[in-house]
Amino acid sequence: MAKKITPRNTDYSQWYIDIIREAQLAEHSPVRGCMVIKPTGYALWENMRDNLDRMFKDTGHQNAYFPLFIPKSFLSKEAQHVEGFAKECAVITHSRLINSEDGVEVDPASKLEEELIVRPTSETIIWDTYRNWVQSYRDLPILINQWANVVRWEMRTRLFLRTMEFLWQEGHTAHATKEEAIAEAEQMLRVYETFARDYMAMPVITGVKTESERFAGAVETYCIEALMQDGKALQAGTSHFLGQNFAKAFDVKFQDRDGEVKHVWATSWGVSTRLIGGLIMTHSDDDGLVLPPKIAPVQVVIVPIWKSDGEQNSVLEYADGLAGELRSSGIRVKLDAREQYKPGWKFAQHEVEGVPLRIAVGPRDVQNRKCELVRRDTREKNLQDRPGIVETIKTLLDEIQMNLYDAAYSRMQEMTSEVESYEEFQKTLDSKGGFIYAHWDGTSETEERIKNETKATIRCIPLNGQSGPGKCMVTGKPSPCKVLFARAY
Amino acid sequence: MAKKITPRNTDYSQWYIDIIREAQLAEHSPVRGCMVIKPTGYALWENMRDNLDRMFKDTGHQNAYFPLFIPKSFLSKEAQHVEGFAKECAVITHSRLINSEDGVEVDPASKLEEELIVRPTSETIIWDTYRNWVQSYRDLPILINQWANVVRWEMRTRLFLRTMEFLWQEGHTAHATKEEAIAEAEQMLRVYETFARDYMAMPVITGVKTESERFAGAVETYCIEALMQDGKALQAGTSHFLGQNFAKAFDVKFQDRDGEVKHVWATSWGVSTRLIGGLIMTHSDDDGLVLPPKIAPVQVVIVPIWKSDGEQNSVLEYADGLAGELRSSGIRVKLDAREQYKPGWKFAQHEVEGVPLRIAVGPRDVQNRKCELVRRDTREKNLQDRPGIVETIKTLLDEIQMNLYDAAYSRMQEMTSEVESYEEFQKTLDSKGGFIYAHWDGTSETEERIKNETKATIRCIPLNGQSGPGKCMVTGKPSPCKVLFARAY
Repeated sequence: MAKKITPRNTDYSQWYIDIIREAQLAEHSPVRGCMVIKPTGYALWENMRDNLDRMFKDTGHQNAYFPLFIPKSFLSKEAQHVEGFAKECAVITHSRLINSEDGVEVDPASKLEEELIVRPTSETIIWDTYRNWVQSYRDLPILINQWANVVRWEMRTRLFLRTMEFLWQEGHTAHATKEEAIAEAEQMLRVYETFARDYMAMPVITGVKTESERFAGAVETYCIEALMQDGKALQAGTSHFLGQNFAKAFDVKFQDRDGEVKHVWATSWGVSTRLIGGLIMTHSDDDGLVLPPKIAPVQVVIVPIWKSDGEQNSVLEYADGLAGELRSSGIRVKLDAREQYKPGWKFAQHEVEGVPLRIAVGPRDVQNRKCELVRRDTREKNLQDRPGIVETIKTLLDEIQMNLYDAAYSRMQEMTSEVESYEEFQKTLDSKGGFIYAHWDGTSETEERIKNETKATIRCIPLNGQSGPGKCMVTGKPSPCKVLFARAY
Repeated sequence: MAKKITPRNTDYSQWYIDIIREAQLAEHSPVRGCMVIKPTGYALWENMRDNLDRMFKDTGHQNAYFPLFIPKSFLSKEAQHVEGFAKECAVITHSRLINSEDGVEVDPASKLEEELIVRPTSETIIWDTYRNWVQSYRDLPILINQWANVVRWEMRTRLFLRTMEFLWQEGHTAHATKEEAIAEAEQMLRVYETFARDYMAMPVITGVKTESERFAGAVETYCIEALMQDGKALQAGTSHFLGQNFAKAFDVKFQDRDGEVKHVWATSWGVSTRLIGGLIMTHSDDDGLVLPPKIAPVQVVIVPIWKSDGEQNSVLEYADGLAGELRSSGIRVKLDAREQYKPGWKFAQHEVEGVPLRIAVGPRDVQNRKCELVRRDTREKNLQDRPGIVETIKTLLDEIQMNLYDAAYSRMQEMTSEVESYEEFQKTLDSKGGFIYAHWDGTSETEERIKNETKATIRCIPLNGQSGPGKCMVTGKPSPCKVLFARAY
């Protein structure tokens, strides 16, 4: 199979596109900015979703489903929210098509009294609903999540990273106290951090956003930030403490234990199919996708090799027994016994699709009770004994998972710098990129100036600040701690 | 707790609404015709979805995701499809809102060149995509399903049964031969029938639709039809053999083994949140929802009862041990130890929510190593030994599942009639309702006349026809077999 993937150091953007195409994850649809998520890509999303969903349920959340459409007037009820979300969005103005000479046309008579917006996020419709669900402190907390599609009318789109429609989950919780709501927002940040680390093998920095990067309507936006192989940062998930902003906008009050009527406190939090873009850019190489075993749709692929018909029977029987044993041990295994493709072609295909472990079995392996194992991450090849193979493979999958995390963590460490001056900052940014810790005076003006001059933004004010106080690298004004800068997706 | 559910024989429609409200399944949203699916209702949908999804995967299907939006012109590419679906739908005409004096307004400058339609069903966008996926017979079959939301601009809506937005799955498959496509459509009909019977405990009649009731663009529409307690039928799922209609409309061709270039054969099939409406109306009673154990989010609820603090400790410990043992045996159990509610209130609540089995444990039960079990379906109360309780409960859950199916099946049989004359038909319809088998001459005219005069429609031409040939009850013309009539939702 000819190499169809552009090397990273030739053209990183093209490499990303090539990986998605060759691993058959997704493609552009005829609707501008919307993607088709293909079966391999969707299976990956299902695994990510199922693991996150379990973590949400383990922390006491339930799923529900709210309408796709939001009345236009809802968007302008929360003053900041309207600025952030009532801009580029899909607007429904009519409800009927009629036949015309060359197909169909919009029936002018079906014009809606109030336009509907396809949800860009659901705070407004959900808080309008919560108003009827909450009367007393006994009705709190409400801990709800929904898995849904949302639409933001993006002009420049990129598969998974920025698309007009995307799939996500959005948690929306309501609490009696400020402290409880903050604890919830922080808890969900930790859930995201844990998921990124333990399942995606993607190290992240946790922190809070500056005012200018905050979610529209939030009091505090917590985030996880990951570093891609090209030295650019990716915001991978956010959790918002919304204060009482939405409760006030939608008049959601409750009678507290003390008899007083108070506004409810809120959080919202979400991750999306964007995570798949982050996954690709964290682990993949010039030969294709590389997937962490814990979320790989196929963890082990078995490729049987034979020449004669007699060999075919014994090899297939051997491979089938192996597949069955792995499957019943909970390993996601695929036996690729297709006759129309040669083993070499299959090897290349499974490599490009990122299957963590490949097993080849031929006539000699059947005879010697062996299996040839090849790791996708290190390409290491090993001849292993058939007896005890399940344990060997489980151990190997764990090793691959850890190795991917370690490699990504080392890379992040190598690509993280700490600077003292603005000159050093600019030089580091251009020569090396990556995460840069530097002092900042806390003003939006300085943040904006740095962004305009360098295209770097403050990714977050880290929760585990690594430095003491100092002076802003630009203005020399006091800074309580260094913040994290990067150019970002 | 005061009875909040209107009895069925007082007002059946109100009973249905009351059940949904009291069991907290769903509610109307501020967007006309769209519903909010509440956590209890959504958990039910998740169980239905997960079981169906497994059945789809076991029959070789993969999930994928296609765009929410469809370019207007796509809808008019298939001649019949446009008649059925390009009518009442949500039309997106603009992509931006701007600030105005009293909130936001649509920016006229953001008018789209071509309007987008929120998918009412996805045949068009999917077949436009399949064109690029199929070149050779080696690329076939394509066996894909998607779980998605769809929108149809319905004027009269009813929670679950008919809503503007609903959740569903839609399978879309592509095949090299007509025979294979028909076999697929029939296979998926059997999957739906099996799911309805074995999971929902809902007996159904399988058949094909008449021409006038066929899916717009289908050559043959297979369906499962269920009978509700009020004697009205509910179409619960459909599977379509689409012939080459969409392949021709979207120019999807392949080179066959014989070297010839041919159009691809298609199927599509779907069930939706409408099934929840069918479930409610199949099993529930005047005291609330009744759920089959196999899809009940909570199969067993444990209510601990105590008076003194000393009792509380021992009872809770006992209940907790019981819950743990049931949970680790794979039973979905909930321990309701809330202190702010009395046991009687909890009993009523779990009854209205349809939990199949309730266990009450008090101090005496702890002492005697007993548990009190109450079935939701029969109200039967039993004192059971604590040792061996897991097996007792498993058996009971199976019995409840079977009993619900048997009761629904008996009811369907009792409410099914066979008539010879149109007079008998009308009399039966008005006195008894239900399913009615009768001869029909096969013309749309007669079908239309019967519908206009009686409001009954042909639900299907049953696959297992129960009668030989005869004469149409209306026109006296020849009829190959009796067909199934009913008034329907």
